[in-house]
Amino acid sequence: MREYRVRGRGIEQIVLTERPTPRPGKRQVLIRMKAAALNRRDLMIVSSSLPERRSGLVPVSDGVGEVVEVGSEVSRVRIGERVCGTFLQGWQGGHMVDADTETALGGERDGVLAEYVTLDERGVVHVPGHLTDEEAATLPCAALTAWHALFETGRVRAGQTVLIQGTGGVSLFALQFAKLAGARVLVISSSDEKLGRAIDLGAAAGLNYSRSPEWDLWALEQTAGSGVDHVVEVGGPQTLARSIRAARRGGDISVTGVLAGDGGAVPVKSILFKQLRLLGVFVGSRQMFEAMNRAVAAHELRPVVDRVYPFESAVDAYRYLGSAAHFGKVVVRIAA
Amino acid sequence: MREYRVRGRGIEQIVLTERPTPRPGKRQVLIRMKAAALNRRDLMIVSSSLPERRSGLVPVSDGVGEVVEVGSEVSRVRIGERVCGTFLQGWQGGHMVDADTETALGGERDGVLAEYVTLDERGVVHVPGHLTDEEAATLPCAALTAWHALFETGRVRAGQTVLIQGTGGVSLFALQFAKLAGARVLVISSSDEKLGRAIDLGAAAGLNYSRSPEWDLWALEQTAGSGVDHVVEVGGPQTLARSIRAARRGGDISVTGVLAGDGGAVPVKSILFKQLRLLGVFVGSRQMFEAMNRAVAAHELRPVVDRVYPFESAVDAYRYLGSAAHFGKVVVRIAA
Amino acid sequence: MREYRVRGRGIEQIVLTERPTPRPGKRQVLIRMKAAALNRRDLMIVSSSLPERRSGLVPVSDGVGEVVEVGSEVSRVRIGERVCGTFLQGWQGGHMVDADTETALGGERDGVLAEYVTLDERGVVHVPGHLTDEEAATLPCAALTAWHALFETGRVRAGQTVLIQGTGGVSLFALQFAKLAGARVLVISSSDEKLGRAIDLGAAAGLNYSRSPEWDLWALEQTAGSGVDHVVEVGGPQTLARSIRAARRGGDISVTGVLAGDGGAVPVKSILFKQLRLLGVFVGSRQMFEAMNRAVAAHELRPVVDRVYPFESAVDAYRYLGSAAHFGKVVVRIAA
Amino acid sequence: MREYRVRGRGIEQIVLTERPTPRPGKRQVLIRMKAAALNRRDLMIVSSSLPERRSGLVPVSDGVGEVVEVGSEVSRVRIGERVCGTFLQGWQGGHMVDADTETALGGERDGVLAEYVTLDERGVVHVPGHLTDEEAATLPCAALTAWHALFETGRVRAGQTVLIQGTGGVSLFALQFAKLAGARVLVISSSDEKLGRAIDLGAAAGLNYSRSPEWDLWALEQTAGSGVDHVVEVGGPQTLARSIRAARRGGDISVTGVLAGDGGAVPVKSILFKQLRLLGVFVGSRQMFEAMNRAVAAHELRPVVDRVYPFESAVDAYRYLGSAAHFGKVVVRIAA
Repeated sequence: MREYRVRGRGIEQIVLTERPTPRPGKRQVLIRMKAAALNRRDLMIVSSSLPERRSGLVPVSDGVGEVVEVGSEVSRVRIGERVCGTFLQGWQGGHMVDADTETALGGERDGVLAEYVTLDERGVVHVPGHLTDEEAATLPCAALTAWHALFETGRVRAGQTVLIQGTGGVSLFALQFAKLAGARVLVISSSDEKLGRAIDLGAAAGLNYSRSPEWDLWALEQTAGSGVDHVVEVGGPQTLARSIRAARRGGDISVTGVLAGDGGAVPVKSILFKQLRLLGVFVGSRQMFEAMNRAVAAHELRPVVDRVYPFESAVDAYRYLGSAAHFGKVVVRIAA
Repeated sequence: MREYRVRGRGIEQIVLTERPTPRPGKRQVLIRMKAAALNRRDLMIVSSSLPERRSGLVPVSDGVGEVVEVGSEVSRVRIGERVCGTFLQGWQGGHMVDADTETALGGERDGVLAEYVTLDERGVVHVPGHLTDEEAATLPCAALTAWHALFETGRVRAGQTVLIQGTGGVSLFALQFAKLAGARVLVISSSDEKLGRAIDLGAAAGLNYSRSPEWDLWALEQTAGSGVDHVVEVGGPQTLARSIRAARRGGDISVTGVLAGDGGAVPVKSILFKQLRLLGVFVGSRQMFEAMNRAVAAHELRPVVDRVYPFESAVDAYRYLGSAAHFGKVVVRIAA
Repeated sequence: MREYRVRGRGIEQIVLTERPTPRPGKRQVLIRMKAAALNRRDLMIVSSSLPERRSGLVPVSDGVGEVVEVGSEVSRVRIGERVCGTFLQGWQGGHMVDADTETALGGERDGVLAEYVTLDERGVVHVPGHLTDEEAATLPCAALTAWHALFETGRVRAGQTVLIQGTGGVSLFALQFAKLAGARVLVISSSDEKLGRAIDLGAAAGLNYSRSPEWDLWALEQTAGSGVDHVVEVGGPQTLARSIRAARRGGDISVTGVLAGDGGAVPVKSILFKQLRLLGVFVGSRQMFEAMNRAVAAHELRPVVDRVYPFESAVDAYRYLGSAAHFGKVVVRIAA
Repeated sequence: MREYRVRGRGIEQIVLTERPTPRPGKRQVLIRMKAAALNRRDLMIVSSSLPERRSGLVPVSDGVGEVVEVGSEVSRVRIGERVCGTFLQGWQGGHMVDADTETALGGERDGVLAEYVTLDERGVVHVPGHLTDEEAATLPCAALTAWHALFETGRVRAGQTVLIQGTGGVSLFALQFAKLAGARVLVISSSDEKLGRAIDLGAAAGLNYSRSPEWDLWALEQTAGSGVDHVVEVGGPQTLARSIRAARRGGDISVTGVLAGDGGAVPVKSILFKQLRLLGVFVGSRQMFEAMNRAVAAHELRPVVDRVYPFESAVDAYRYLGSAAHFGKVVVRIAA
């Protein structure tokens, strides 16, 4: 069977290799992969200078496939079922522990850009039936991060207002999930076209922050001066000051990304006086994933897939993601 | 009756004045004040350049007295009872709203450095019987902030470790409350003598950060590498980076003060990966105050009072607070 | 001005009386009532043998009107605004205290079946603009109970399943609110016609329990054997055993009514083994009411009004409610 | 190696048998058992008519031992460490799922009344070092149930009052844990001697309910009429009505046992009007166990051990437990 491995730094170092199809251990399942979806993290892992463990790594955390063989002690999953691997294989439920950080697919452990993958039966979840493989492949990282931010550490409810930043994976899923839950969504982006598409997806209003950089004031206007209930932060210190101003007294700010870098001053005094909660959110547990899937299934929610590349062109998929031209997920089709 | 009023900027502008004893409105109580306690905020209000509202203000938020008259519609309080005013007169329970910010004693509203004060019956709480007046006077601001941080937005439990910074009012109350709840307390200070006194109060270990500035590493050592469960932050951005390093995965950092100023970079990426919660805490509601008082009463907890000044020497009390030599609260005795 | 007063036991003892229009106290508002809505409680207060306080009572808790005068210290409300009174005038936010029970409109205090009413400014909330007066009048008791049950003590989320019992006020609002929040709703009723109307409102499935009394088994079937996430109980001990069987492991059962009487055995062992939460829910606080109104406004949700009676025929409205033929709220129009 | 097995109904059917020492699987540990502790459940499993699965079962859920061998993939535990097995082997963290019910030691799975036991590495926890083996053996079921009740589903805090019923395992641990957390404990018992011992352990007051059956009124008196914050229920429907009366408005009642049988009426209306929460509690997860152990270790808490029997006399230990004469846990010493 074929799988990609990372040989060194740079997209060109992701190469297609061959090895015998693995067999599952006693509590493992063998999955014939159907599709994988890229995250910005996948790009960072190959693009920047990185830990030793990258060398030889099978990349990519997110994917879906069909169980084709199960170990002798497997009870949670059956042959023929369609499953996603979980981003953090070790985090089942409750709180995350230090050891769980060593179990991330496509980083600390081999990922899913392969024709066959073996995972622990506790490291997979069943996938809503209405989804195509391309759609299902997108759930493990960005979708779960958004769900976790809004409903697990966050407290978003019907009637509340959620602000999302840009139209990356976490932000678009946050938009879709917040809508499911009866919340109103404000979106900022540097592209009018992307704003238009976000509004098509259900956002109540959008602002082009390259033309109107004071999006915090805009968010206040959009909420009659009171501020938004929840900000899904993806920028880091560079955007946090505005997020703090945009939030209502007692509001939540989920810290899900630091795309704009990690330096920069934060107006801590406002966190105090506004009694805000800044909540670090790192993907999520298998139990959260299952709760999310129930919502995805009940609403037949469709993740936004931008482009699909064939397995042999996975490197092109990386390049396209790197261009930042996408709106929605970039997917690799592995098998029919 | 006599009361202090702030005439302008600077401690010297706090002057003793005279006016007729007020009468309570229908839902108000008239309180004969017994003692008042100073907070750093009281110093800041008179010392720095400030809003117009300072002029003519009766200063000081914290105090205790005896109800000597009640309005015709008062039902919560009776003549002869001993009560504290609440810091935020408007915040009864549930979440704080914007209008509540306009109801802070000794700031937005006249405070308690006076022989008689009238307050709404909803703006007072009964005081545990075992406390002296000097002790009871210290509860409204610093104690409630600590209680709110640990148990209302925070989740401190028996067996957990709490880190406090310095030995100011909030920190010492946090030490005492955390101990009540079965938690272990680590303390940092720039004074060996103050560390010793904190240990006498029940702290498990202390570090002099002027000699050993890497108190984050020390906190990790003290918790077998896992980090503390809760940090009660009083410093702001200057200390926050170390607090973030000192906290365990999934830990809480209460933001209760920005004594060291509001500039400075914050390692937001660590908030994300460690899934920390930064929780802004601003004093608390009357219902929180009542819950705290039940704990104070049940344990006959004694607030730490450093020095008591007579009413006529209130300005000296301000000066002593300004010297930062104190350990515990600085109190003004108003009446026997 | 005219108002109804209860002279004794029985619907016929609700009589129209006259008195001068009251004036608001300093912190009160005078409301010109537009519409009032009946709850089963209103019927019980006049129909059963009851406490002394009934005699002379202005009945009915739920209504809406226009503020026509405000007291000198009123700041939360302005003349011309449309407001509902809160069911429990004393419960602003946080937890309910014993004294709050003495502040229920149309029971412990005079209600709103009157042309003019004075209420404390803290005892009113602004009303979403899209609602007719008849619709707005229905919010204070049944709607708030449903909101409180699902989202304040309950934890209903997108993708979950909620079971409602019958089509009374609380149940229909629970149906509508659960749908807003992305949940799926199962409904049981003794009337096929009412089931049909509940399905028109968005329920996923319905069962006629007079034909199929084992609705607990049906609920399990409808959830692939796992059980529903939340039951909104209105029946009391008579229905609780089935609710407990219908709930999933770790599920919630809101106890909002005991329509079927208070005797009867409860399978407590199943509460233990299934780790259920039985949550007593009694109307709600003003802050909850405001959160609910934000959701009602954002979604332009329309309460279900069955029939509207003119003010002079209020007694007929009581009779119609007593017939149990209604689907949705029974309203009295007080003024144009 | 020797182990007990249940051959049929009745204590006499627990017989000592012999088989080769087992070897751990890849992710298992082999534990040389040191001590086991009995729970009422162990008595019920052998005493009453029961499911088929009893036959051949190694009984008893609670015990402690030393890890003497580990499987090739074990990373959480090392040889030489002292561990307890978890009651529900499958429940690691987060919420319990249906499959976890099939993983209870000494019931659905072979228990620990044996010289050697193999368990999954996820099914064991490290044990506080200050405990004797006899003490450590008592933690898995009763202690964890009490911890879960008070602090995981419950919200017990410093200054609150907790009522416990009798002096069985769950009740005594609830007493000790509530004290750790700064709460006040009321205890009822049918034995003056046991009341005296509970007071020695820190209970604030006790009542002999065989002489004074109206313990609900007593609990109200002990709380100045307001009611207790938390009742740890062990009796079931027979005691629940009084627990409901003894609880404060908004209080919690943990349902941890139904010792007095499962029939009987429950005053559901009071659950509603008092806004109580009835919370089913069934042992707990491994993560809860670990949190509990941190508290036990930090306070060097000592479980109450009544009597210790040698391994060969395990059946006598069952008999003694059946006599209900004990105060604290009945333990079997398995190895030195």
